[in-house]
Amino acid sequence: MKRWDCVAIIGVGLIGGSIGLALRSRKLSKEIVGIGRRENSLTAAKNRGCIDRGTTSIPSGVKNAGLIVVCTPVELVPRHVAEAGHHCPEGSIITDAGSTKSDLVMRAESSLADRFPRHLPFVGSHPIAGSEKSGPEAADGDLFEGRVVVVTESEVSDLDVVDTVEEFWQSLGARVVRMSPEEHDAALARTSHLPHLVASALAAATPKNLLELAAGGFADTTRIAAGDVELWRQIFLANRGHTLKALADFERVLSRLRQALEMGDGAALAQILTEGKRRRDALGS
Amino acid sequence: MKRWDCVAIIGVGLIGGSIGLALRSRKLSKEIVGIGRRENSLTAAKNRGCIDRGTTSIPSGVKNAGLIVVCTPVELVPRHVAEAGHHCPEGSIITDAGSTKSDLVMRAESSLADRFPRHLPFVGSHPIAGSEKSGPEAADGDLFEGRVVVVTESEVSDLDVVDTVEEFWQSLGARVVRMSPEEHDAALARTSHLPHLVASALAAATPKNLLELAAGGFADTTRIAAGDVELWRQIFLANRGHTLKALADFERVLSRLRQALEMGDGAALAQILTEGKRRRDALGS
Repeated sequence: MKRWDCVAIIGVGLIGGSIGLALRSRKLSKEIVGIGRRENSLTAAKNRGCIDRGTTSIPSGVKNAGLIVVCTPVELVPRHVAEAGHHCPEGSIITDAGSTKSDLVMRAESSLADRFPRHLPFVGSHPIAGSEKSGPEAADGDLFEGRVVVVTESEVSDLDVVDTVEEFWQSLGARVVRMSPEEHDAALARTSHLPHLVASALAAATPKNLLELAAGGFADTTRIAAGDVELWRQIFLANRGHTLKALADFERVLSRLRQALEMGDGAALAQILTEGKRRRDALGS
Repeated sequence: MKRWDCVAIIGVGLIGGSIGLALRSRKLSKEIVGIGRRENSLTAAKNRGCIDRGTTSIPSGVKNAGLIVVCTPVELVPRHVAEAGHHCPEGSIITDAGSTKSDLVMRAESSLADRFPRHLPFVGSHPIAGSEKSGPEAADGDLFEGRVVVVTESEVSDLDVVDTVEEFWQSLGARVVRMSPEEHDAALARTSHLPHLVASALAAATPKNLLELAAGGFADTTRIAAGDVELWRQIFLANRGHTLKALADFERVLSRLRQALEMGDGAALAQILTEGKRRRDALGS
């Protein structure tokens, strides 16, 4: 297992904080530096044991870092990768934890092209873990244990960097799946972005005075609608095309259900319910 | 707290079994009789401690029952209420636990009208509790603790019976909300039947090979799609009109989201996400 002298984490919320905790409890880095905009987030992350020290300056925070993990909202990732890439030591490796990849990776890569014309030090990542909670207070050192992390390999990726980033996530307990940024976005539109859209629409469509008549099914189905609005706005905008395609497919199934209901067609209804049940049973709890 | 000499439960699945366990642990009935179609469900319910004895015969099972709770699938409830009503002792009270009420209550009431021309012994109930699990093995004596049970008061309901049924559910730890069968169905279409439809459509629309990229959000949003297909087919057919209205409202919100995405309109997107978050935050975990 590779051990680091210094890992810098830009953005110490739930994901960044959990990476810090995981590195620490596994003794994988001599030093963990947290980089954030607000002093009180850094203090909270330090108190929670996520980082050894905090700074609001990217140049100073990445100065000695062999690995830099950018865990800021997706719209900010390319800028933070660029800044880290221009101030990190020769040989440092940079990755991120953003929920969308195509645009983000392309922008991050091109921002580094002048300093690193041959071997790009950046590879995109997306840990498929998290929750509707946020902030370093919710950080969990076992968040990545047994979970899938997508590591993206683009046409210009340096394969040594891809390998190192893969090993990094494995060292936190994750299982790594490699795919292109485009494949990632097409898949996540269906498994993450569409479900969020649907949960938000369902919650928004429910009159407040009926909430006392909502049981566990409603609570489960709408849980992710409580997620951070700004983060999700950015994710949807960054993955518009694929999300719209996934939405169109969902609307087609929904409209088959509507027609079955309109016709009082129990057999057609049962058929779609059965398809859904099979898919859900295959997932497990 | 009223104590019964004998309570009969028709249908000893998750709900019926949980009623039995709750009655028993609270010592609310001297005898609990389970009535079911299959001997092995009755044996399972008895082994689980839900009932004192089981029988496959409604006439014999209700013979001494002061209270009869019908917990069978909604399409069967009216028939079982009728049969119980024609074999129970004078003064017995009958209720059910079905997820839809308008049709069911009307049919159950009319089936009893010839034996009880003045004081109908039946009042409809719907405990807003349950899960995607089923069977007496999943029964839980605390299932109703702190949960809402709707007790429906129709135009022909006997108010003494309504009171007794309300007290019965309260004795199991539930909070009772009274409404008309029609109001119940309009509300539950939004808080329960629509969410189930949406979860099923979402699960059915997700390609199986992408399930490894699904995280907790997908798992939560689709959890109820694993529910019993036949039970839900019956619920949807019994509450078609209200479910279609709720679906139309949901589709309107979803289409506002689609338009915001198509236009790349972040402000409109954030507005709907915020509405959804507020509604979900109001619900609690």
